[in-house]
Amino acid sequence: MAAKRLDESATGVFIIAATPFTENGAVDYDSIDSLTDFYIRSGVHGFTLLGMMGEAHKLSGEESLAVVRRVIARAGDRQVIVGTSHAGIDNLRRLSHEVMSAGAAGVMVAPTPGLKGDDGLYGYYAQVFAALGPDVPVVFQDYPQATSVFLPVPVFGRLVDDFPQLVMLKHEDCPGLGKVTRVREDEKRPGRRRVSILVGNGGLYYVQELRRGADGAMTGFAWPEMLVQVHALFASGKAEEAEDLYDLYLPLVRHEQQPGMGLALRKEVLRRRGAIRSARQRAPGSSLGATDLAELDNLIRRLERRLAAAGRSSPLAAE
Amino acid sequence: MAAKRLDESATGVFIIAATPFTENGAVDYDSIDSLTDFYIRSGVHGFTLLGMMGEAHKLSGEESLAVVRRVIARAGDRQVIVGTSHAGIDNLRRLSHEVMSAGAAGVMVAPTPGLKGDDGLYGYYAQVFAALGPDVPVVFQDYPQATSVFLPVPVFGRLVDDFPQLVMLKHEDCPGLGKVTRVREDEKRPGRRRVSILVGNGGLYYVQELRRGADGAMTGFAWPEMLVQVHALFASGKAEEAEDLYDLYLPLVRHEQQPGMGLALRKEVLRRRGAIRSARQRAPGSSLGATDLAELDNLIRRLERRLAAAGRSSPLAAE
Amino acid sequence: MAAKRLDESATGVFIIAATPFTENGAVDYDSIDSLTDFYIRSGVHGFTLLGMMGEAHKLSGEESLAVVRRVIARAGDRQVIVGTSHAGIDNLRRLSHEVMSAGAAGVMVAPTPGLKGDDGLYGYYAQVFAALGPDVPVVFQDYPQATSVFLPVPVFGRLVDDFPQLVMLKHEDCPGLGKVTRVREDEKRPGRRRVSILVGNGGLYYVQELRRGADGAMTGFAWPEMLVQVHALFASGKAEEAEDLYDLYLPLVRHEQQPGMGLALRKEVLRRRGAIRSARQRAPGSSLGATDLAELDNLIRRLERRLAAAGRSSPLAAE
Amino acid sequence: MAAKRLDESATGVFIIAATPFTENGAVDYDSIDSLTDFYIRSGVHGFTLLGMMGEAHKLSGEESLAVVRRVIARAGDRQVIVGTSHAGIDNLRRLSHEVMSAGAAGVMVAPTPGLKGDDGLYGYYAQVFAALGPDVPVVFQDYPQATSVFLPVPVFGRLVDDFPQLVMLKHEDCPGLGKVTRVREDEKRPGRRRVSILVGNGGLYYVQELRRGADGAMTGFAWPEMLVQVHALFASGKAEEAEDLYDLYLPLVRHEQQPGMGLALRKEVLRRRGAIRSARQRAPGSSLGATDLAELDNLIRRLERRLAAAGRSSPLAAE
Repeated sequence: MAAKRLDESATGVFIIAATPFTENGAVDYDSIDSLTDFYIRSGVHGFTLLGMMGEAHKLSGEESLAVVRRVIARAGDRQVIVGTSHAGIDNLRRLSHEVMSAGAAGVMVAPTPGLKGDDGLYGYYAQVFAALGPDVPVVFQDYPQATSVFLPVPVFGRLVDDFPQLVMLKHEDCPGLGKVTRVREDEKRPGRRRVSILVGNGGLYYVQELRRGADGAMTGFAWPEMLVQVHALFASGKAEEAEDLYDLYLPLVRHEQQPGMGLALRKEVLRRRGAIRSARQRAPGSSLGATDLAELDNLIRRLERRLAAAGRSSPLAAE
Repeated sequence: MAAKRLDESATGVFIIAATPFTENGAVDYDSIDSLTDFYIRSGVHGFTLLGMMGEAHKLSGEESLAVVRRVIARAGDRQVIVGTSHAGIDNLRRLSHEVMSAGAAGVMVAPTPGLKGDDGLYGYYAQVFAALGPDVPVVFQDYPQATSVFLPVPVFGRLVDDFPQLVMLKHEDCPGLGKVTRVREDEKRPGRRRVSILVGNGGLYYVQELRRGADGAMTGFAWPEMLVQVHALFASGKAEEAEDLYDLYLPLVRHEQQPGMGLALRKEVLRRRGAIRSARQRAPGSSLGATDLAELDNLIRRLERRLAAAGRSSPLAAE
Repeated sequence: MAAKRLDESATGVFIIAATPFTENGAVDYDSIDSLTDFYIRSGVHGFTLLGMMGEAHKLSGEESLAVVRRVIARAGDRQVIVGTSHAGIDNLRRLSHEVMSAGAAGVMVAPTPGLKGDDGLYGYYAQVFAALGPDVPVVFQDYPQATSVFLPVPVFGRLVDDFPQLVMLKHEDCPGLGKVTRVREDEKRPGRRRVSILVGNGGLYYVQELRRGADGAMTGFAWPEMLVQVHALFASGKAEEAEDLYDLYLPLVRHEQQPGMGLALRKEVLRRRGAIRSARQRAPGSSLGATDLAELDNLIRRLERRLAAAGRSSPLAAE
Repeated sequence: MAAKRLDESATGVFIIAATPFTENGAVDYDSIDSLTDFYIRSGVHGFTLLGMMGEAHKLSGEESLAVVRRVIARAGDRQVIVGTSHAGIDNLRRLSHEVMSAGAAGVMVAPTPGLKGDDGLYGYYAQVFAALGPDVPVVFQDYPQATSVFLPVPVFGRLVDDFPQLVMLKHEDCPGLGKVTRVREDEKRPGRRRVSILVGNGGLYYVQELRRGADGAMTGFAWPEMLVQVHALFASGKAEEAEDLYDLYLPLVRHEQQPGMGLALRKEVLRRRGAIRSARQRAPGSSLGATDLAELDNLIRRLERRLAAAGRSSPLAAE
């Protein structure tokens, strides 16, 4: 069953899926299936593949496409967004068309490093949109910590005005709370479309961002059910309850969002939860030592204790 | 009463003091006094002035020295560390000797930007220690996010071996948990001194770092009593209670550590708590809009609710 | 005799003056005098002090002002521009007013690091101009290699339109030839002022920049008579002769503009030419080893040979 | 005819080959042939393909391999080095083995961005060498301007000692003259191998680097015959004549090495010299406007004039 194309109404949790490997470093397609199932059981609304984080850049071109096809085949009617940023626009276009043909709902594109000035940034996306054509829905991936390219709100507004295929902002600027507010205020001017905003930064400001007008999260937190439940509570008007739930998980959210070390932590949690068979990363990667594992043990015990005190079931048992 | 010189036994909370200004931008010396009193009432063990964060770089040379003298005069026997990093070593030495003469307990020095390679870093500090002489206790400020200079653990070990006046590591690398562990493991080799480690990053990993061997915190969190109480609980062997208390404040810790916006939030909280009269920053600075203030209101209400539920008094009333 | 204030008609060579030190690291005021005389004999049209390069950041506040006064006192009617960039706008204003009172013709201000987006850059300079007032002529120092802030031509145009005290662009972007052309084309629109453009980058593209509309150079090349003569030839319509002369010196221009090592080379040349007594830099600084000195010897011998072949006198004998 | 494997005796000019495209953006294989022939007629000793500069990153995986095969097929016994840097070591190994099987003489590997400290850098290359195995000759690409990873000379020495397959340093640090000298001095210690050093930076310090012990150049200057002739003169003990010849071309060397704009200039020169049919770049790329072209015209005219005055033939006619 094919998912519909991505549009401005996208909402909820688009999980950034980890890429599982076997102990000898091959892509673990069985674990892709179990991980996809795990995410679906957690209630995610969609998937994001081959994002900047994670290990997509360690896949070969063939592996990348195979991973995308594998997830799409199992994701049912959930939309799959695929990151297709590339140094060359020809490659970006080819990859985008390949994944769209494979059933992706849209593509996510970050600014290429080295863009200069508001006009330089606008011009790059104008080139990208022209190359992709109007039928490929695009997510603007705003992640200046990695790209060193800042997205001013007026530039985003001009792009929204001029290119209907731009339907979502993946918001990951930091500090970035003000940017969510300014984009939403900017949309109130007559004729401006309201686009979807999903937030990243490991979810560290998730509820604050929902309160400021974000539509959900696009991140890889290894307890995605929290992201989903918080979204549902918030959507039903229970913002304080949403934040209460969120705060129970905040020590883990904070722990996982450490740059460099976060992926190792996430894969280890996913392994413990039965979603993947091995926490192995392809080289060069990070790994966890005895102190790191004991620390994670304790943080999880503390989470389980808090959940139990709140009358909620243990996350590891939740499967 | 003069505080004793800083040494390897330093422990607890060395608060990074904000610099209060009047509404027209002058240094507010009365607020320096009330802020110093506030920090002392909160139980801090020492002070850090003219650090990299904050607004020290917006003071004139005369103002910097006046601020240092004002705090020292009121800090009693609490040790005061002063940041004296400077592009030129002559200036660094002169500033250091001035503040030591004024009663500082030690100086904090970050690597000058542009240092290259392990030997380049070691050589720079060797120059600094030679210029300062053996009688000025030095804190190594490890803050690569700002300096772009990475401190490898073996280089720190060589410096500790070769320069007895190096007594503390201000740890602010990120991800940095592993570094605390490696420094402590490295100290087990025969003959290596154990130095003090105080942690920064807004306290975002405070308890994890204490568990890994840190001796306390050097940061500017606007509820310093939490930093102090967590340290005391941890020191008395109650690590889990310490983390329970910490977790109550974590949403605020996380909120305040936002780069760029954090200082505006801290000054606003300090103002509300009666510690300073104005939250004004010198230009160019950040400020809070209506949405930011409402968000802060709510985060504080939620903190008060959690504290009350835990049988603790309201922080704003604590004064 | 006081020089007149800087305005849009500025042209020629504003030499970035080195700061001479004695062998024990004190400011060498006698060498400041002899160096100033050397520059004047070389024919420079003005001076730039306390720029970003060089060692101004290693001076104390008192030394900086003393150096400025010393040069102004000896510079006669030549205009002196002083770099007053500072992390805080209050300090920038105070320094600027001090040096203007001391007889400076204008101040040079670089964007503070961390500015984001076209509006962020415009807003910063709007703050600076408001703080300085309309009577302080300002040079925009465009040096993104050091500030990491890019200046888009439309932003510069808006600043020129809105702030009459902005009279000069110190152009040091790289690649930057296109920017000179675009600024000059942009000035053709009705009502836009034509400002002065002086170029840096060690003069590596000096003649190309003159051909594209630059008015001269602001750099510290240690054979300033070449910069002056090239400017004069070019101004009298002899562009090809100007470039012929320039090309004779290009191997040295290229050699001196090496980042890091360039200052050591310049000071050594100035010392050999009798302009200063010591090539010493304040720590941390660079210095020349035996290989570096032999290399410089040979490059100078080769220059003298080329000059002799062209019927010109030896540069070292020129004093 | 297969070229022999790369080893420490490599010397001369390894040209970094441009990638020609047709006007509609396809790889222009006919122009690859004519360009390869052009380079061979210019006397180059070898080729470097898929380097960091140029447009290799805009090729698809299939195109990359096709380009490598095409050049190797035409290069005869000239060695071909292929850049195989990749974010993942698995991909790096696979690409390396593919190109070695296709007849490459060795691979060139730059440090992956984000490596920290001397040990981090050493460890990365140890991983790479282990993955590649002892039979793949490796060039260390030292280009910190692009990678932000600095190579300390002691780390390079350790790698040379421990990994016999490391046979060459592609030197492109800047300032970097001192590094060439230090590597050569470091090699004098008993037991240390002497490796080949080829220099980049557009050749801007070519003769200085040869004098300091470099073995040749690895750069993409569009008049490669100069690089070759300078090397030959230098090798025959005529260093001053070598530098005289070099200096004739220096204005063009300097012009072409502008970041960003340089590739457009090189492709235009190669087009004019009949080596390729179109100067087109794949998007996003740079292009030359009317002013840029007129400037290039004039620089070439001036070169021809200088060459004629020196009794040498016109470069454009040289084909």
